[in-house]
Amino acid sequence: MKAVDISFFQNLLGKDNAYFDEAHKLAYSYDATRKKFRPDGVLFPRNEEDVSKILKYCNDNLITIIPRGAGSGFTGGALAINGGVILSFEKHMNKILEIDLENMVAVVQPGVINIDLQKAVEEKGLFYPPDPASMNYSTIGGNVSENAGGMRAAKYGITKDYVMALRAVLPNGDIIRAGKRTIKDVAGYNIAGILIASEGSLGIITEITLKLLSKPKLKKTAMGVFDSVNSAMNAVYKTLASGVNPVAMEFLDNLSIKAVENQYKKGLPTNAGAILISDVDGDVMEALNSDLEIIEKVFKENKAIEFVVAKDEKESANLWFARRNCSQAITVYGSLKINEDITVPRAKLPELLEKIDEISKKYDIKIPCFGHTGDGNVHTNVMVDKNDENAVKKGYAAIEEIFKITVDLGGTLSGEHGIGISKAPYMNLAFSDEEMNLFRQIKKAFDPNNILNPYKMGL
Amino acid sequence: MKAVDISFFQNLLGKDNAYFDEAHKLAYSYDATRKKFRPDGVLFPRNEEDVSKILKYCNDNLITIIPRGAGSGFTGGALAINGGVILSFEKHMNKILEIDLENMVAVVQPGVINIDLQKAVEEKGLFYPPDPASMNYSTIGGNVSENAGGMRAAKYGITKDYVMALRAVLPNGDIIRAGKRTIKDVAGYNIAGILIASEGSLGIITEITLKLLSKPKLKKTAMGVFDSVNSAMNAVYKTLASGVNPVAMEFLDNLSIKAVENQYKKGLPTNAGAILISDVDGDVMEALNSDLEIIEKVFKENKAIEFVVAKDEKESANLWFARRNCSQAITVYGSLKINEDITVPRAKLPELLEKIDEISKKYDIKIPCFGHTGDGNVHTNVMVDKNDENAVKKGYAAIEEIFKITVDLGGTLSGEHGIGISKAPYMNLAFSDEEMNLFRQIKKAFDPNNILNPYKMGL
Ligand SMILES: Cc1cc2nc3c(=O)[nH]c(=O)nc-3n(C[C@H](O)[C@H](O)[C@H](O)COP(=O)(O)OP(=O)(O)OC[C@H]3O[C@@H](n4cnc5c(N)ncnc54)[C@H](O)[C@@H]3O)c2cc1C
Ligand SMILES: Cc1cc2nc3c(=O)[nH]c(=O)nc-3n(C[C@H](O)[C@H](O)[C@H](O)COP(=O)(O)OP(=O)(O)OC[C@H]3O[C@@H](n4cnc5c(N)ncnc54)[C@H](O)[C@@H]3O)c2cc1C
Repeated sequence: MKAVDISFFQNLLGKDNAYFDEAHKLAYSYDATRKKFRPDGVLFPRNEEDVSKILKYCNDNLITIIPRGAGSGFTGGALAINGGVILSFEKHMNKILEIDLENMVAVVQPGVINIDLQKAVEEKGLFYPPDPASMNYSTIGGNVSENAGGMRAAKYGITKDYVMALRAVLPNGDIIRAGKRTIKDVAGYNIAGILIASEGSLGIITEITLKLLSKPKLKKTAMGVFDSVNSAMNAVYKTLASGVNPVAMEFLDNLSIKAVENQYKKGLPTNAGAILISDVDGDVMEALNSDLEIIEKVFKENKAIEFVVAKDEKESANLWFARRNCSQAITVYGSLKINEDITVPRAKLPELLEKIDEISKKYDIKIPCFGHTGDGNVHTNVMVDKNDENAVKKGYAAIEEIFKITVDLGGTLSGEHGIGISKAPYMNLAFSDEEMNLFRQIKKAFDPNNILNPYKMGL
Repeated sequence: MKAVDISFFQNLLGKDNAYFDEAHKLAYSYDATRKKFRPDGVLFPRNEEDVSKILKYCNDNLITIIPRGAGSGFTGGALAINGGVILSFEKHMNKILEIDLENMVAVVQPGVINIDLQKAVEEKGLFYPPDPASMNYSTIGGNVSENAGGMRAAKYGITKDYVMALRAVLPNGDIIRAGKRTIKDVAGYNIAGILIASEGSLGIITEITLKLLSKPKLKKTAMGVFDSVNSAMNAVYKTLASGVNPVAMEFLDNLSIKAVENQYKKGLPTNAGAILISDVDGDVMEALNSDLEIIEKVFKENKAIEFVVAKDEKESANLWFARRNCSQAITVYGSLKINEDITVPRAKLPELLEKIDEISKKYDIKIPCFGHTGDGNVHTNVMVDKNDENAVKKGYAAIEEIFKITVDLGGTLSGEHGIGISKAPYMNLAFSDEEMNLFRQIKKAFDPNNILNPYKMGL
């Protein structure tokens, strides 16, 4: 970073909002991929005006900018892979600006942490459904930029289903609004729609208007125990096709069950081939009971050995604790976890899981799987010893096969984590040259000088 | 149209799919705006390959293309305002390709008529909610291109909420896919999201993959009668903020009630200031009854004079018949109807309707209002005598004031009908130069030669 640039940023923001020391560069060199790239500096804009001035300056001087939420991304979106300055919203632009009860809308700055928003709206009887497992630290800005999913997506959808409007700053410094605090808006192109999931490569999101729901009064949790993954996967899509609309239909395979149970002793059936955890909710108990009856019926038609409805909040919490702690518990199977979030049409789940099992055998690698099967989304975790070069190579070969199978089954490389740098090498499996070319044209339309999170997403 | 161009199209498609005679030009010169512009020809592509070849040729030879569904658009999207050839999907590309029960998905060509899709999926116990009042003739391609809404949007959302994937042809002839038959997909930019509501200006949509729901087993219809529009508008937003989730909450003002009742005698209360028609649905009667109780309670707290639940299918059908026939019935108030589909945050409805009343008095013009108030969407109809030049001028002045008020209240120029040519002059009320500039950059990224439906949407 040139001295002139440093002084521009320090003059604009003050020295306590513009850091170029090694400690800060180190602190902002990571994300959840555990890869490390040192940025050239770290900026904490105080407001949208700051963001606009920073972008205009960087655009004129061809300085790379990497927007950053909490750095919990799984695909390297917040990493400074080619240097540049980090733009962080955690220090100042982290306020809930408004909770509008009459229109059931919240307006937040990008640095607001997901769980803080959830708590604030629930206090007022409202409900913000998107609940990524990272909700305790990931930011709404990051959630929007990755279009984060969560446990409740089967019934309630994902982040994009709640974004009504955005404010954003374009690379040239222009401040724009996209969308409205209205249920419907078809005036002009859907700019908010393309900023969502754009992984910080098109614009900096400075304000987010979110749709809220009213908080369901009742909830029940059930677990189905299956002797095989195949039975469980059949149960998933058949239950959903039967017309019932569960909040969640989460899956753990035998390796995942064993790992969690060994560590936490929550009473999971360690002999089961798979379990499914399902929530139903609503305001009228008859409707919840009717849902549970249908789920039980379809589960049993699909060879469920057992169907248990949690008796109380504690039993329910135990099941959810198990699910939420899978990701970390399965690290017993290997020091390197190559985890992906492939997603297929739901009825293809049985075939997908069969093929993953074959790959696991072929490469002799453990691949524990769990995930949001209610949305067709499976977290596949290829577990290898990070110090065994050969095993690591095999692991990546296995992942490539899994991606190919996913695409052949009509699925996507990523249901929720995005592409970033981790999946960039596989974009050609999923997209044609014509499609990649269109992505590049769009990137150019927003960011002709390629200053915003460049070289991500295979672009 | 040059002879060489005509022979290219006729050689490609056959003479019975490429017309350049006056009768065809006349037949395809209209849409629901009742404005007339003759195109230079009318093409009926047989498949996506044809579309690709046509676009490539037109792009190379700078020939304008206007895609057209049923021509039921209210804003002139399908009009050849500067000549060019019409691309119509009604003759060949009008097939339901697949109804996938296991994944609850339908795949259709753009020329499929909305009601045909609804019927086909309902026969199989499934449900496609978007039901624009034009559903008996408008096409899915047109619905997607305008992001059409309908009566059921309050609970079930609009067209965009059902589009999982698209196939499209870009102006250069490239064939692309966008999205997948999966609930979630965050790989690459959201191209489907920006094609939706792009009014045929970015690409030609050649195939649409739609999410289906399971058909609710039970439905009930209720009517609230209010002495004033203001009470009714308060009831709308307070009912929705109370947590109940009705399928619809439709509004008719006194002028609309009287017009429908005079013509059709359906037993509407002609002395009422306003009525609200609301449906609730689901699979469990207790839940429907609970919803109706809450609606009744909030309506009465907001000065409803009467609350009637339809006794049977016939009473329900009568109410809905009245609602569906408003648009045509109110033509008694003037030979020119300038109808708009402004939409505001729901809690702003009382203020919006008050201001419209003031404008009506100020200009001494009748402005009957009805619409999808559950989404904040009001159809405002400025009724004037089309032969009275002065009245017409006043009418447009009134409309401009209404647009200004809408934008001031945080609303949008269009909730569902789009911009086309009708609202293009008002885009500057709603968008800044920076925002318009971004729209133009996006248009250029897709369509550098400006051959696809040019000069619409204020671009
Ligand atoms: C244990 C764990 C569990 C997880 N569970 C889930 C899950 O269930 N579902 C799920 O979807 N994800 C999950 N994730 C992934 C991750 O938490 C999400 O992708 C999250 O949305 C990232 O938010 P963040 O604030 O950490 O963003 P970061 O990782 O900091 O950034 C993510 C991307 O957004 C961009 N960005 C951030 N803020 C802005 C802004 N204001 N403007 C423009 N671009 C911006 C960055 O440049 C980057 O490309 C999990 C991660 C972990 C570590
Ligand atoms: C009586 C009446 C009631 C109505 N009620 C409603 C309502 O309740 N809700 C609502 O939202 N609208 C309503 N409309 C408006 C209209 O029906 C909708 O906008 C509808 O979606 C238009 O469909 P269409 O097939 O007629 O398209 P057209 O009018 O032919 O075209 C609309 C736009 O789509 C483009 N287009 C069409 N097909 C394609 C394609 N395959 N690829 C790319 N671009 C394409 C055209 O170029 C044009 O810009 C109503 C209209 C009428 C006349």
